[in-house]
Amino acid sequence: MKKVSMAVIRRLPKYFRYLSELLENDIRRISSKELSRLTGFTASQIRQDLNNFGGFGQQGYGYNVEGLHVELGKILGLNKSYKTVLIGAGNLGQAIANYKGFEDAGFNLLGIFDKNPKMIGLRIKDIEIGDVDDLEEFVKENDIEIGIICTPKYGSQDIADRLAKCGVKGIWNFAPADLKVPEGVTVENVHLNESLFTLSYLLKQNAEK
Amino acid sequence: MKKVSMAVIRRLPKYFRYLSELLENDIRRISSKELSRLTGFTASQIRQDLNNFGGFGQQGYGYNVEGLHVELGKILGLNKSYKTVLIGAGNLGQAIANYKGFEDAGFNLLGIFDKNPKMIGLRIKDIEIGDVDDLEEFVKENDIEIGIICTPKYGSQDIADRLAKCGVKGIWNFAPADLKVPEGVTVENVHLNESLFTLSYLLKQNAEK
Repeated sequence: MKKVSMAVIRRLPKYFRYLSELLENDIRRISSKELSRLTGFTASQIRQDLNNFGGFGQQGYGYNVEGLHVELGKILGLNKSYKTVLIGAGNLGQAIANYKGFEDAGFNLLGIFDKNPKMIGLRIKDIEIGDVDDLEEFVKENDIEIGIICTPKYGSQDIADRLAKCGVKGIWNFAPADLKVPEGVTVENVHLNESLFTLSYLLKQNAEK
Repeated sequence: MKKVSMAVIRRLPKYFRYLSELLENDIRRISSKELSRLTGFTASQIRQDLNNFGGFGQQGYGYNVEGLHVELGKILGLNKSYKTVLIGAGNLGQAIANYKGFEDAGFNLLGIFDKNPKMIGLRIKDIEIGDVDDLEEFVKENDIEIGIICTPKYGSQDIADRLAKCGVKGIWNFAPADLKVPEGVTVENVHLNESLFTLSYLLKQNAEK
């Protein structure tokens, strides 16, 4: 398969979400024109994006919603489940642990860890918060594939190092830091401050118009 | 000022964060080469990005960290404070309301609203959760500039409509929906599922290598 750009990759989950919504509304077939109106991307963009992964649409018919949903799910790696742990059980960590969309999509949270003695032993969603000192043992014993880092900036690189060392291949990082990881490990960042500052930038630009 | 691409805009908060860290470490001067090593962007990319806003560096000297930090802060609209409200006081809403980076950067949370009678009247950070029916009145009385939507997908468009109608210019949206807003209103999305699905896509690609 040819190399697909990050811009295309980031549109795939969006298509997937719209297809999920169409299915919920029992819509079985959609043209790229209708999909364009729905998503805000041009029909030709959508066709191009999907053509990276094989031809899904049929001339004069459009897309079979269910079929495309299944295929996109496979492309996104959502046809399997993932074993995950979360590190940092503060407000944000708790919210992510409780986040519904997460479990529903096959991301199973098996462990939660913190270094704060006041947090250790408490329960979130029936999971007892463990001591972060026991992270490695847990990750290895449970074949954890994804680590979710919800710690403050300081300490986040150390956690990433430790996760990578015991075989974790994916990191979903909420700490405001750019983590350095060995080849073969993927980091996906949710940098809340950067998102917020982008908003304030755009607000300012709009006000100056 | 010329039109700046979203790719550049999204790098600005990253530069700003790195400059903040340099200041914390009492580093006063940095070359674009060092900045490149730090941020992972090429020196020429950094120079080009910053040149969109005027020339900040000096040949042979590099950048004055504090000066550039102040200027970038202004460019990002962080030299003022913002009045905000949050709608949807579930787990994620509570985490965002308690998020430290938020208040520190001048985003003042004045009101929190929910429609769940069990939530109304409870307190988060000394703010009593109000009935979402009172949203418009509060927004107008307090000249709210930014609304933070932490509701489920259903209902998020309605909240966006109502915020826009009473003059809110910026929406920080955590609901898994693409909100439609009138011209002059800016939406910045944090779509957690899309981020997570991007991670699973990249994990899958890496595994197939």
